[in-house]
Amino acid sequence: MHTLADPLRHAARNYAGSPATICGDVRLNFRELTARCRRLGGALQGLGLKTGDRIAILAANSHQYIETYMTVPAAGYVVVPLNTRHAEAELAYALEDSGTKILLTDVDPGGLADIVERVIRIPDDYEALLGEAEEIELGTEIDEQSLAGLFYTGGTTGASKGVMLSHRNLIANSHNWTAFAQPRRDDIKTVMAPLFHAAGSNSVIASIWSGGVQMIIPQFIPAQILDLIEKERATQMLGVPIMIAALAEEQHANPRDVSSVRFVAHGGSPITTEVVRRAIAAFPGAEFAHLYGATETGPLITGLHHEERIPHSDLLRSCGQPLPGIAIRIVDREGNEIAAGEVGEVEIGGPNIMQGYWNKPEQTAAALQGGWYLSGDLGYVDDNNYLFLMDRAKDMIITGAENVYCTEVEEVLHKHPAVLQAAVFGIPDKKWGEAVHAAIQLRHPTEAEELIAFCHEHIAGYKVPKGIDFWDKPLPLSGPGKILKRELRKPYWAEEGKQIS
Amino acid sequence: MHTLADPLRHAARNYAGSPATICGDVRLNFRELTARCRRLGGALQGLGLKTGDRIAILAANSHQYIETYMTVPAAGYVVVPLNTRHAEAELAYALEDSGTKILLTDVDPGGLADIVERVIRIPDDYEALLGEAEEIELGTEIDEQSLAGLFYTGGTTGASKGVMLSHRNLIANSHNWTAFAQPRRDDIKTVMAPLFHAAGSNSVIASIWSGGVQMIIPQFIPAQILDLIEKERATQMLGVPIMIAALAEEQHANPRDVSSVRFVAHGGSPITTEVVRRAIAAFPGAEFAHLYGATETGPLITGLHHEERIPHSDLLRSCGQPLPGIAIRIVDREGNEIAAGEVGEVEIGGPNIMQGYWNKPEQTAAALQGGWYLSGDLGYVDDNNYLFLMDRAKDMIITGAENVYCTEVEEVLHKHPAVLQAAVFGIPDKKWGEAVHAAIQLRHPTEAEELIAFCHEHIAGYKVPKGIDFWDKPLPLSGPGKILKRELRKPYWAEEGKQIS
Repeated sequence: MHTLADPLRHAARNYAGSPATICGDVRLNFRELTARCRRLGGALQGLGLKTGDRIAILAANSHQYIETYMTVPAAGYVVVPLNTRHAEAELAYALEDSGTKILLTDVDPGGLADIVERVIRIPDDYEALLGEAEEIELGTEIDEQSLAGLFYTGGTTGASKGVMLSHRNLIANSHNWTAFAQPRRDDIKTVMAPLFHAAGSNSVIASIWSGGVQMIIPQFIPAQILDLIEKERATQMLGVPIMIAALAEEQHANPRDVSSVRFVAHGGSPITTEVVRRAIAAFPGAEFAHLYGATETGPLITGLHHEERIPHSDLLRSCGQPLPGIAIRIVDREGNEIAAGEVGEVEIGGPNIMQGYWNKPEQTAAALQGGWYLSGDLGYVDDNNYLFLMDRAKDMIITGAENVYCTEVEEVLHKHPAVLQAAVFGIPDKKWGEAVHAAIQLRHPTEAEELIAFCHEHIAGYKVPKGIDFWDKPLPLSGPGKILKRELRKPYWAEEGKQIS
Repeated sequence: MHTLADPLRHAARNYAGSPATICGDVRLNFRELTARCRRLGGALQGLGLKTGDRIAILAANSHQYIETYMTVPAAGYVVVPLNTRHAEAELAYALEDSGTKILLTDVDPGGLADIVERVIRIPDDYEALLGEAEEIELGTEIDEQSLAGLFYTGGTTGASKGVMLSHRNLIANSHNWTAFAQPRRDDIKTVMAPLFHAAGSNSVIASIWSGGVQMIIPQFIPAQILDLIEKERATQMLGVPIMIAALAEEQHANPRDVSSVRFVAHGGSPITTEVVRRAIAAFPGAEFAHLYGATETGPLITGLHHEERIPHSDLLRSCGQPLPGIAIRIVDREGNEIAAGEVGEVEIGGPNIMQGYWNKPEQTAAALQGGWYLSGDLGYVDDNNYLFLMDRAKDMIITGAENVYCTEVEEVLHKHPAVLQAAVFGIPDKKWGEAVHAAIQLRHPTEAEELIAFCHEHIAGYKVPKGIDFWDKPLPLSGPGKILKRELRKPYWAEEGKQIS
């Protein structure tokens, strides 16, 4: 019957003098961090809120973010972490949809200030509030079924939905992370993925419960992060593939002593074998792991351990087995489970599954059926229940009568030594309906013909890109660091007069 | 919302071809083990039982025991593991008190057969039943709040109470074990503590969930166990102190290759620093850990990691900090929490706390108060929440006006090179009320005077034993391997005409 108040209480009692967070020049031990949380709880209580009220945060990673993320739910309210890369209209939608009363932010809120009752600027207003506040006991107003957070998916399609995660959902995810990543008291974790995303905040609870240090990265600058890893002797990192790739490139270009790093996990979007290979070479002392998750599942679903040990295996294309505590099954269009090897929709079960979408009973009913979450992702499992994701269903290209899974083509493009980044998507084609197209950032110069010929050597002709756009800068990213294929597709489909969601 | 059916289902899907149990000549992989569990469920269903009926097991450790332990609750019934060292009258009490319908046993049940509706002998009847049975889906009749097991405490005092542990209690304990011991898929665990005791079955669920191997020891014979550890390259073991001590003695006398052992945990009763020292020397590649638990808490409460790194620290006398997921507090006689350093009763909170004592509402109300379990154990915590148990309250000696905690005296006696086993207890004394007395098995000859003089060098005079009984064989043990002080005391108190409970 745990709530987010329990890891805070546990840390205050058991790890008081141990380091908790490193954030720029600010170092807090667990006595200080948990006392600040109890004071933040007191400050919020003093603002006339009632149990279950929503409090949003729009900010870069910081120790104040961690405090807010833990304390708002522990004090009986609901935290709404907002995506800093969303446009003001999207943010306004999330604030209005959730009925948020208070916005904590480290940026000028602009028109968002008019939607909420009060804006608390980080760090100045925030620190002033804490300075005046009394410590309160956390966890008294809630139980494990209480709503802890609303996580607006944003994502790259559709209207943003508020994913309702209860205390129990987040605690279950913490157990899943603990079983998989085995956090230790002497771990120093690099917190570089944005905390507003479920993947970024994935291990916050487990870090506090296990007494490890969170080394918080406000802004993703590879050289600075590697300097910090060397200086603080960081042991763990979790990021999206594009972050892991950038750190590996920087480490190859300007090597630091990264021998302290024992665990590197990535997730959030598919990774190519080439990026894995270069990352393993960059962090030779680390165990590598691939994670697959979704906001709706708190987020962890599957994990693939020890990628460094399976470089020539088909398993490297898998995102692993469901973590202990999680069940998956592959179903056909009628929702019946299908055999190993057959492609269908991935469904997920476990105590980590969301309570639903905020104010969206129809979408909730469509996504949660018979205790399972219908992910919308396509994949298959092998005989040992290793999951292979083909691609997001909505991202698959249908060209002629053939299905092309974008990741397969991207995988091949990344094998070419000149390719740094590649994204594959469909564009309108009079003959085929859709044609396979690629956007590529090069590591060194080459021609489109060379890349297309390279593809023909590795995959069937209908899968080979018919055209390539070369980018002289990184491809555009969504908040959680996924390549924004919507942006890449837009110019092509706009001419067709089609609405792209 | 997990039940014991979930780890079985997870293992069947994810670890099917991997080894699950080694038990004499029988090796089962997870496909075979979980199929046997589903068939056992089918067999039990065919016997006309209804959901919630009790099924007892009285047997040495075996793969059938593991199957029964998991399947009876997963199929909707309640497992009652019986202590093989209890007298027939005690066993009869447990069967009658629980209303058990079926007894599974590997011994002649004698008069116990008349109490139950049916006896199933292991292995013959059991295997015959499985041979005829259909596999069923497990977990359909229950939820996480369903009663999973009744664990009769027996213990060394009082009438035996049936501790009610729900599925959720056991799953919570599995999470606690996972956070502490970090089981891995490549672990091979030596299952040597009796499975009828909560300590013995402590890691069964976590082993199945993580995909590790359970190497099952039916009978505790140190030389055979060390041979097996060497042969199978076992990595983990969990035992009571007397087992760890016996394995260490055997390893010092006849060394095997035990380099595969990475984790040695002990609990169930206090351990002396000398036993720890000799065990560390015997298993130099292992991390050592001390666990404190109680049947009523599922059983884990606290853990002390890395004893091998703290040989000269006061912490070695501690049983560690509460595991993540567990809260402890020390209270005075009025139930108010007291400060660090002060001795009081240990109370425990968490989702692992039992539902109560079967059919004993008064004892339940006395033991469970405000969400806390009142352990009856005396101890204090230091400033970092490390728990120091003084002794079982009921085992403390009051001599004159002074309290003597038996473990402190035993600790000193064990430091003497001639002492192999020592137990300290109170006997009637006209002058002091009680006098401190010791029972000792020697490693090599010495005199009582020598040992008493040795004690005087280390502890206050009132704590020094006034008399010593020398034993030429091991001291008598209770089922879970605790020294039976009741037996040692009996002759002294019988003369007094006192009733010893």
